[in-house]
Amino acid sequence: MSSTTRLRSLNINNVNPHIVEAKYAVRGELAVRSEEYRARLDKGDKSLPFDQVISANIGNPQQLDQKPITFFRQVLSLVEYPPLLEKEDVLLNQLGYKPDVIERARWLLETVGSVGAYSASAGAPGIKESIAKFIERRDGFPADAKDIYLSAGASSGVNTLLHIMAASPNTGVLVPIPQYPLYTASLAVLDAKCVPYYLDESKGWGTDLEAIKAAYKQAVSEGTDVRAIVIINPGNPTGASLSADDVKAVIEFAAQEKLVLMADEVYQTNVFKGKFHSFKRILREMQKADSEKYKNVELASLHSISKGMVGECGHRGGYFELCGFDPEVVEQIYKFVSISLCAPVVGQCLVEMMVNPPQEGSPSYELYKQEYDGIFAGLQKRATALYEAFKQMEGVECDEPQGSMYLFPTINLPPKVIEAAKKEGRSPDEFYAFRLLDATGVCVVAGSGFGQKENTLHFRTTFLAPGTEWVGRITKFHKEFMNEFR
Amino acid sequence: MSSTTRLRSLNINNVNPHIVEAKYAVRGELAVRSEEYRARLDKGDKSLPFDQVISANIGNPQQLDQKPITFFRQVLSLVEYPPLLEKEDVLLNQLGYKPDVIERARWLLETVGSVGAYSASAGAPGIKESIAKFIERRDGFPADAKDIYLSAGASSGVNTLLHIMAASPNTGVLVPIPQYPLYTASLAVLDAKCVPYYLDESKGWGTDLEAIKAAYKQAVSEGTDVRAIVIINPGNPTGASLSADDVKAVIEFAAQEKLVLMADEVYQTNVFKGKFHSFKRILREMQKADSEKYKNVELASLHSISKGMVGECGHRGGYFELCGFDPEVVEQIYKFVSISLCAPVVGQCLVEMMVNPPQEGSPSYELYKQEYDGIFAGLQKRATALYEAFKQMEGVECDEPQGSMYLFPTINLPPKVIEAAKKEGRSPDEFYAFRLLDATGVCVVAGSGFGQKENTLHFRTTFLAPGTEWVGRITKFHKEFMNEFR
Repeated sequence: MSSTTRLRSLNINNVNPHIVEAKYAVRGELAVRSEEYRARLDKGDKSLPFDQVISANIGNPQQLDQKPITFFRQVLSLVEYPPLLEKEDVLLNQLGYKPDVIERARWLLETVGSVGAYSASAGAPGIKESIAKFIERRDGFPADAKDIYLSAGASSGVNTLLHIMAASPNTGVLVPIPQYPLYTASLAVLDAKCVPYYLDESKGWGTDLEAIKAAYKQAVSEGTDVRAIVIINPGNPTGASLSADDVKAVIEFAAQEKLVLMADEVYQTNVFKGKFHSFKRILREMQKADSEKYKNVELASLHSISKGMVGECGHRGGYFELCGFDPEVVEQIYKFVSISLCAPVVGQCLVEMMVNPPQEGSPSYELYKQEYDGIFAGLQKRATALYEAFKQMEGVECDEPQGSMYLFPTINLPPKVIEAAKKEGRSPDEFYAFRLLDATGVCVVAGSGFGQKENTLHFRTTFLAPGTEWVGRITKFHKEFMNEFR
Repeated sequence: MSSTTRLRSLNINNVNPHIVEAKYAVRGELAVRSEEYRARLDKGDKSLPFDQVISANIGNPQQLDQKPITFFRQVLSLVEYPPLLEKEDVLLNQLGYKPDVIERARWLLETVGSVGAYSASAGAPGIKESIAKFIERRDGFPADAKDIYLSAGASSGVNTLLHIMAASPNTGVLVPIPQYPLYTASLAVLDAKCVPYYLDESKGWGTDLEAIKAAYKQAVSEGTDVRAIVIINPGNPTGASLSADDVKAVIEFAAQEKLVLMADEVYQTNVFKGKFHSFKRILREMQKADSEKYKNVELASLHSISKGMVGECGHRGGYFELCGFDPEVVEQIYKFVSISLCAPVVGQCLVEMMVNPPQEGSPSYELYKQEYDGIFAGLQKRATALYEAFKQMEGVECDEPQGSMYLFPTINLPPKVIEAAKKEGRSPDEFYAFRLLDATGVCVVAGSGFGQKENTLHFRTTFLAPGTEWVGRITKFHKEFMNEFR
């Protein structure tokens, strides 16, 4: 290394230090090793103690069991190759396409021109209007297409919003812990401060307003210029689904302290217990009750096609809606998104279909409903099976599944594990996750990748993989692991 | 504004100042106005002096005349809706699909699983291997899939590479002037220094090694830590296509000063005059001749599906290949790209088809060739028509079209224009471009958006719009404009 330092322009000591600092465990060393195992299995390697890798480290439904929704993909096949629209009888009579598929494809093509053309920077106007109508239906309050920005998944929207806010190394953003590491990684890259606030595991990982206030107060006392608060609802990695009162309390706090609310609501349809409460709706209700007090609350709410029953991660689609932002700031957001030209247009079309799926009475409705409900039921079933298994496991505590695609159990590990992990230079939960992968082929993410309270250990697993055989592999491993280190 | 400052978290004075500084004229005020005109025309507004907006400001072929290539889109229709593959006879006999379309779709699906699933962070392995084979065929030297990173268009690749290099406000990158403003905008956002070097208009906008050396020397003497040199070949906005000697000279210089070569080669198939010389090939030739001297040259070469005869901008696909980078730096690049998960998978499939199109003798070849050649001939024809028109225009000087999708004529404007522009607070070329848009509906980009030598004025126009009627609109406007301000 010391020699390459002199030989090349770039070396590890002179590249952007903020990228070097950033951590992104979801696709880190453990994930890389799991891909190596997968490649070995694909090549016929029989030396591994498992015959399949289960990527439970990442919410990637279609890599596992989930089938795409027929209506969406039929429409996409037509927007990709519009000459098919000239063969309506073949589509209808021989390929099983329904008239509303054809109609939607025609409408989308009218809106975007060609899916191979750049759209307007913030997205195709017709698609933004459709999203606005969805938000109106969902929340019961008006929404305006001009406030909507299409993005390449929610990640790109988060990146845009954090970029705008990160004015200096002193800029802080309140981030829930545990959290999806996109937030900490992006803040690290931007050289801004992550101000962690802990979620309350004892209350099903809900927001704890006192913890938020304390984290905020401490950051401000240390001179941090706190600009925003991130809320992930339903939670990632926790799966927690916030009550209306919790949402209200966070808005109240943001209004008081003049913080931007960044509501990551990509799991809004993955709710098994209770009901999703959008920040937008509750903000509008609060504004209706006291306009003067709340009129300038800045809210950015994000959504994605990667999650929910859509699960179209590879298409990279999403949007964010801005409420209450200063028009001059909005101009800067527009300029920033225009530098990357536009979100993938096929992804934009999928966003449109996600928010405006076939309605009751339309020809594609029945199949759509059946597929959608089937995916939902499958997720719930597997979540429950996994939860039941965790309940049986020694030293494992897990909340009842509430939402999102994850469970985030606590693991209480014997002292010998702590020692063994230290020897390998890993945290105990990482040590556990590596051993789990090596023994079973199941790849999860250690809790330390998301942040956790000191002296607590967790891991995050999706419940997307088909069947329950792999759950059995985990239970068996856990038993042996505990016996080994007891 | 003073009041909002106190009301909200974010205002123009406290957001990221580097975004506020960044300029991106390609989608700036002029483009916004052109979209307003388009919307007015769409709503039936008859008060404008034109009945169509021509977006010659952006290389967006499918927004204008260019039809997508049939093979590409047929394959995409199948990967979007794989159940069609079960109806082979319908595809072949009634929809005109050829067997190689079906074969390619099956292969791509095998490679990516589902286009709705995230791929590996740097792209689907099979697609990376296909790209490596293309590079080998193009250059006659081996290429390795592990050095290839799929990206959402070349813009996202540029963003990644500049992110890695931008270690401090003192980091500098040599950028050609005039240039595609992505470079200056990204460097501004990253708070790194753009070190401009002027291209030589008198030599068809070629690279001028003396100018590069002088710019480098001056930057170094001012304490700038120059890390890399960007070369856009064929040029944007200039259209210049570099000779092998020019490429060699730049590599020689980069080797000597230990600079990363960023070769933006997105227009590599848009060459009308001479021949495209890839930096990779010439680097490998130089390494063959003198391994010791050139073995550590760091080259990143970028390509895209948005340009060439593909023109699939909306699908956001591209790749970059790394040569000679330190493995520890490569790890950081990998981590950075993994934070945004993966490039759009349909875009990745298009990259694969771009680099591996139907070959002679395969069923889809004839149509592919006909479409490809037709697009090429159309671009060349329109480029020539535009060039001929510019030659006739008073005070306009333009080089013969060489490559890319643009012409970048010099305009010599009367002193009265300079005065009138000053009154409006615009540069004279912006003033000209606004007047052109207002009078004709043709949207170009003023030379100041790309950078130009002091006391010179230009504009960039694509030659993508169909027909030549709009060229006539420009000539007519120009005549009247010159008469008005003479």
